[in-house]
Amino acid sequence: MEKTPKIAIYPGSFDPITNGHIDIIKRAIMLFDQVIVSVTRNLSKSPLFDETERVQMIRESLNDFPHISVESFDGLLIDYAREKQASAIIRGLRAVSDFEYEFQMALVNRKLHDDVVTVFLMTHDKYSYLNSSIVKELVRLGGDVDFFVPAHVRTRLEEKLRVK
Amino acid sequence: MEKTPKIAIYPGSFDPITNGHIDIIKRAIMLFDQVIVSVTRNLSKSPLFDETERVQMIRESLNDFPHISVESFDGLLIDYAREKQASAIIRGLRAVSDFEYEFQMALVNRKLHDDVVTVFLMTHDKYSYLNSSIVKELVRLGGDVDFFVPAHVRTRLEEKLRVK
Amino acid sequence: MEKTPKIAIYPGSFDPITNGHIDIIKRAIMLFDQVIVSVTRNLSKSPLFDETERVQMIRESLNDFPHISVESFDGLLIDYAREKQASAIIRGLRAVSDFEYEFQMALVNRKLHDDVVTVFLMTHDKYSYLNSSIVKELVRLGGDVDFFVPAHVRTRLEEKLRVK
Amino acid sequence: MEKTPKIAIYPGSFDPITNGHIDIIKRAIMLFDQVIVSVTRNLSKSPLFDETERVQMIRESLNDFPHISVESFDGLLIDYAREKQASAIIRGLRAVSDFEYEFQMALVNRKLHDDVVTVFLMTHDKYSYLNSSIVKELVRLGGDVDFFVPAHVRTRLEEKLRVK
Amino acid sequence: MEKTPKIAIYPGSFDPITNGHIDIIKRAIMLFDQVIVSVTRNLSKSPLFDETERVQMIRESLNDFPHISVESFDGLLIDYAREKQASAIIRGLRAVSDFEYEFQMALVNRKLHDDVVTVFLMTHDKYSYLNSSIVKELVRLGGDVDFFVPAHVRTRLEEKLRVK
Amino acid sequence: MEKTPKIAIYPGSFDPITNGHIDIIKRAIMLFDQVIVSVTRNLSKSPLFDETERVQMIRESLNDFPHISVESFDGLLIDYAREKQASAIIRGLRAVSDFEYEFQMALVNRKLHDDVVTVFLMTHDKYSYLNSSIVKELVRLGGDVDFFVPAHVRTRLEEKLRVK
Repeated sequence: MEKTPKIAIYPGSFDPITNGHIDIIKRAIMLFDQVIVSVTRNLSKSPLFDETERVQMIRESLNDFPHISVESFDGLLIDYAREKQASAIIRGLRAVSDFEYEFQMALVNRKLHDDVVTVFLMTHDKYSYLNSSIVKELVRLGGDVDFFVPAHVRTRLEEKLRVK
Repeated sequence: MEKTPKIAIYPGSFDPITNGHIDIIKRAIMLFDQVIVSVTRNLSKSPLFDETERVQMIRESLNDFPHISVESFDGLLIDYAREKQASAIIRGLRAVSDFEYEFQMALVNRKLHDDVVTVFLMTHDKYSYLNSSIVKELVRLGGDVDFFVPAHVRTRLEEKLRVK
Repeated sequence: MEKTPKIAIYPGSFDPITNGHIDIIKRAIMLFDQVIVSVTRNLSKSPLFDETERVQMIRESLNDFPHISVESFDGLLIDYAREKQASAIIRGLRAVSDFEYEFQMALVNRKLHDDVVTVFLMTHDKYSYLNSSIVKELVRLGGDVDFFVPAHVRTRLEEKLRVK
Repeated sequence: MEKTPKIAIYPGSFDPITNGHIDIIKRAIMLFDQVIVSVTRNLSKSPLFDETERVQMIRESLNDFPHISVESFDGLLIDYAREKQASAIIRGLRAVSDFEYEFQMALVNRKLHDDVVTVFLMTHDKYSYLNSSIVKELVRLGGDVDFFVPAHVRTRLEEKLRVK
Repeated sequence: MEKTPKIAIYPGSFDPITNGHIDIIKRAIMLFDQVIVSVTRNLSKSPLFDETERVQMIRESLNDFPHISVESFDGLLIDYAREKQASAIIRGLRAVSDFEYEFQMALVNRKLHDDVVTVFLMTHDKYSYLNSSIVKELVRLGGDVDFFVPAHVRTRLEEKLRVK
Repeated sequence: MEKTPKIAIYPGSFDPITNGHIDIIKRAIMLFDQVIVSVTRNLSKSPLFDETERVQMIRESLNDFPHISVESFDGLLIDYAREKQASAIIRGLRAVSDFEYEFQMALVNRKLHDDVVTVFLMTHDKYSYLNSSIVKELVRLGGDVDFFVPAHVRTRLEEKLRVK
């Protein structure tokens, strides 16, 4: 009897992808047969990078990894997850403030449909303080972000934020 | 090509197993091919139930579930997990206080060996306040624990704690 | 000698009222002789429902409860509470993030006037993740909110958010 | 028709009572017709003061306040509260760590019986760091606790802890 | 051999300075030879007071203190700190929510340059709930802020916010 | 005019010293003219290493650092700090749970004497999960603690804990 492959989605705005996100994705692929990195199409606040750019930067960052795909989505996350036949929604946790918001969303999603499990992975301690907003702020102020994002993301950030 | 089955361990003292633990195990089995419920043999504080009783109560609670096994272990958790060829260590998260301790242990384990991923699952909101200590305290004081543990666990708790 | 009735106010934006709010109000009326649900007239961010609609939805949700009145207010909460001869300001607590903001406001209010007591009630665990923003977001994305708000609130939400 | 008086219980170990406890009791009496300060008879860890001493110190601290009574109890808190026909269980909140434990107990009590409401009052900011353990530790090490407890409690503490 | 004086910077938006900030500055000057209060020139959200007004209000509040200077800055905080030959960046901590954001920034700054130490000082308990936003909101609603800011800051706040 | 040297004490049980403690000490010496590492003589729970051993291990770990001294103390921390003419008490902060306990102690100490400032330094992210208890537990279970403590501390830990 053939085993059904286990699929996980990793949703986010990825504006842009950071080394923290990449660390989570590499952990997720150790657990699931396929990981779909799912870029939120319409964000409530306007993103720095448009949907296409955000997807491209993720793809370039994950070239070497098999069993990972990247796409964008909109609508209700839990409906999207079920359409993809995902067993799991992956979320990275860094700090207590993450924890509360993430739990709230996980509980709402579980209430809506009980057949997709939200799975929390811990961000590596060396990226525990990292998020996309801080990276953008650093580039804006002229700081060095080599440690925080892949080189190609850094280049794009500088093009967007330092030309002005 | 055959896919390697994904194994997860769910370690704990389970003194005794509660409906909160059972909820986590049912979620874990939606994600992994096999879940090993692993009872800590030697606890720092002396348990109410001995190792054999704790294992038995878990087995009775999970009779109907395939792909779940129960055993006890001692030594370093991460060594045990690798010996079992586990991809994941499952931990339930309920509250902020859980969160900090669990993250600390997950970071230590990741530092020791990077090839087993700690996976956090969210306890169902209706069990968010539940733990084994509260259940024991309630039985000791004559409270009703039907909502909190399976009937056979309740019976054992009353035998242990109300005879006195 | 006649006892002075104890009055409590329950302030909020209620944009719209949820089942979590209703649970708090039902608990408050077990404690006080009169509960005034007090809708903040001018919000810093523009509400989905205007003041009249927000008051109406609360009234429709609480038709069957005596000793509850609904009104709107503006100005300083503590001044309004004293004008109403309230002994207490009711606040619902769900999570740690609530806790800190609510404590801050309670301490400021106590500093301004020491004769009104801020009273925190715990939201029922089944609504612990619920707030008005999540309900609006769910309706906007086509999610089912039957569990979260009364039927008449759901209808109004769909009229506002799905027509577009 | 006569109004039923609203009774609240304020349970604790009070080993010994501090100025923080007294602040909470004064706030509670602004809200309820009667407040019963309820001393836990059997504590899991052995108290510094026995049950009679703990009750006496509370009585001496609250001499001037009408509508307050002091007694000891054992057994399940929620059963005791119902026997006293209490509408409310009062709990003081100081910090996030309090919050989680207190919520857990309030949710368990609500699950056991839904007719007694747990009410959280905020400790005055000037006592936000205060608890009985710290007071005992300070006296043991020769520190001045005038700000933290009434004079008669201070005397008893010094008799117990400095004789040695 | 002459000892190099230890310089600390205390950065912030100070829109306006409160008694909580002043308490931190007085503590900092007990530790360092010189404290530079550094006003963020360009804020992401538009401030109530412009840069010049914010600097003036701080100067008027700290007239009597030697070894304190006030200036404004923009760009990356850590670069500014090094340019000033500061050993330390001072940050006030009040609550858990402060804690996480502040740690994140301190870790980022340490990653960028390891030679400036972020030093956290505890806000006095009587100002633990205080921040510039609450003060502005209180003045806007007609509340009394005498306890929260120096008299000259109160006057300026009323001029700005009550004329409208 | 001669400048009075600024002295800081860094109190703790250090049972044993870890790389996290050493990181804090190195940061503290960047800020103060002298740092006294102060080992708590009598601990409430019995330590693994006696007072002399704990002092020795700290001294061996800090051989290369000038301006650091190590001693043991008992009694009230704030009295000891004043006797040493210290301006500051250094405390390391790692996580939210640290934060609350540390703030409580800092507020008590400030209430007792206002002339010594508690200064919080942030533990390096790579040691954010580290404490002496975890290190002892790891050695007890046969884990590798090279990353967590200096080599000479590791040797002593193994002598104490693995002989059994």
